[in-house]
Amino acid sequence: MPGKNQWYIVDGYRPPLRSGEAEYEGHEAIMILNCSDVDAHCLIDVYFSDRDPVLGIPYTAPANRISGFRSDDANVFEGLNLQVNTQYSLRIRSDVGIIVQYGRLDVNQPNLAYLATLGFTE
Amino acid sequence: MPGKNQWYIVDGYRPPLRSGEAEYEGHEAIMILNCSDVDAHCLIDVYFSDRDPVLGIPYTAPANRISGFRSDDANVFEGLNLQVNTQYSLRIRSDVGIIVQYGRLDVNQPNLAYLATLGFTE
Amino acid sequence: MPGKNQWYIVDGYRPPLRSGEAEYEGHEAIMILNCSDVDAHCLIDVYFSDRDPVLGIPYTAPANRISGFRSDDANVFEGLNLQVNTQYSLRIRSDVGIIVQYGRLDVNQPNLAYLATLGFTE
Amino acid sequence: MPGKNQWYIVDGYRPPLRSGEAEYEGHEAIMILNCSDVDAHCLIDVYFSDRDPVLGIPYTAPANRISGFRSDDANVFEGLNLQVNTQYSLRIRSDVGIIVQYGRLDVNQPNLAYLATLGFTE
Repeated sequence: MPGKNQWYIVDGYRPPLRSGEAEYEGHEAIMILNCSDVDAHCLIDVYFSDRDPVLGIPYTAPANRISGFRSDDANVFEGLNLQVNTQYSLRIRSDVGIIVQYGRLDVNQPNLAYLATLGFTE
Repeated sequence: MPGKNQWYIVDGYRPPLRSGEAEYEGHEAIMILNCSDVDAHCLIDVYFSDRDPVLGIPYTAPANRISGFRSDDANVFEGLNLQVNTQYSLRIRSDVGIIVQYGRLDVNQPNLAYLATLGFTE
Repeated sequence: MPGKNQWYIVDGYRPPLRSGEAEYEGHEAIMILNCSDVDAHCLIDVYFSDRDPVLGIPYTAPANRISGFRSDDANVFEGLNLQVNTQYSLRIRSDVGIIVQYGRLDVNQPNLAYLATLGFTE
Repeated sequence: MPGKNQWYIVDGYRPPLRSGEAEYEGHEAIMILNCSDVDAHCLIDVYFSDRDPVLGIPYTAPANRISGFRSDDANVFEGLNLQVNTQYSLRIRSDVGIIVQYGRLDVNQPNLAYLATLGFTE
């Protein structure tokens, strides 16, 4: 089965929401590629610098699709209250092999800045 | 044989075509390094967020060369109609070990933004 | 135990301190994710281009937290005098599995530039 | 011995030389960390898109140092004539474990753009 079952996003950080000159809005997104014929049932663990982690937030990555969510997605992070300007990390555990990437778009300036990193897996 | 036989590009995204102030044009490119003495016969699978994947698009990475293609290359993606502003992922399978990298250049602003990631392999 | 015990940051470089137009300050940071229930006792080795390395600087990455430090953090690099505009590398050894990422924010221009890389591990 | 003996830089590209607004000059650099107590004797292979590779360029990465070279360094690439605006890739073979990273700074615009990637190793 392609992919891995455990991924880590170390440098999560929600940039302040503001619109830049380009037709973009500042955001960050977690993208999950599932090349299998079955849905991937994921559990998301969120780590913070100053409090205990929130463990086991469920997310389903559909079979044969690229899917994902933004860090301000209330459907995924309901009740978590992931603040702007706060450092956090993610661990994503899945029952099916997946590939995880993190992207951030910062528009706190006239021009945008991109940041993209594959998650860490082992 | 150097390299790996299966690669994944998670965060494919075609930026709108527009020229920036620099002498560049917005684009994204998939680069394939083949350090072997034989050509690499690749099959490209394209994954989407809202429809079934398109599997098995052929591409030949010549022996002892760095080669590649842009996501708007009709010779490679003939009939696929990979839209601007659409999220997609790629899986590249090869009969010869290769190394794959993805790059994007976004010029939807006065200044360019770079994004570069090695593909994921296992 | 999640993570690895030995990490390398190749391209350490302290950008000059200056404030850009955005609400940021130029800096670089090393982020360490510890998903274990015990603290990670790390030893940081700093490599230079023109002198012998400084070995064994202690740092504790608390259990179940994302933590980190800036390269100008005197609490961590006391007496090291890590200069602006100087190339350096880091090796981080830990008694507990961790995941390490490096980020740099350069504001020596009207707009910021991001650089983010996972450390190398083996 | 820390590090690996074979590294690949897929996306080599020399940006045009021009000075931006920041106190930087456009360039790209290959950085090699050698944490061993012995010098690393490297052989650099350069791959092109339209001609045969140039193999076996010697480079010594000193023991216990971060070292490196720019792609326009005539001491390393003597006679190679690595052109601006040309795509190339590198393979770096070493008799001692090393860690290799590639960085590019593009200043063909008022603001700089960074690109940083760890080499691929296996």
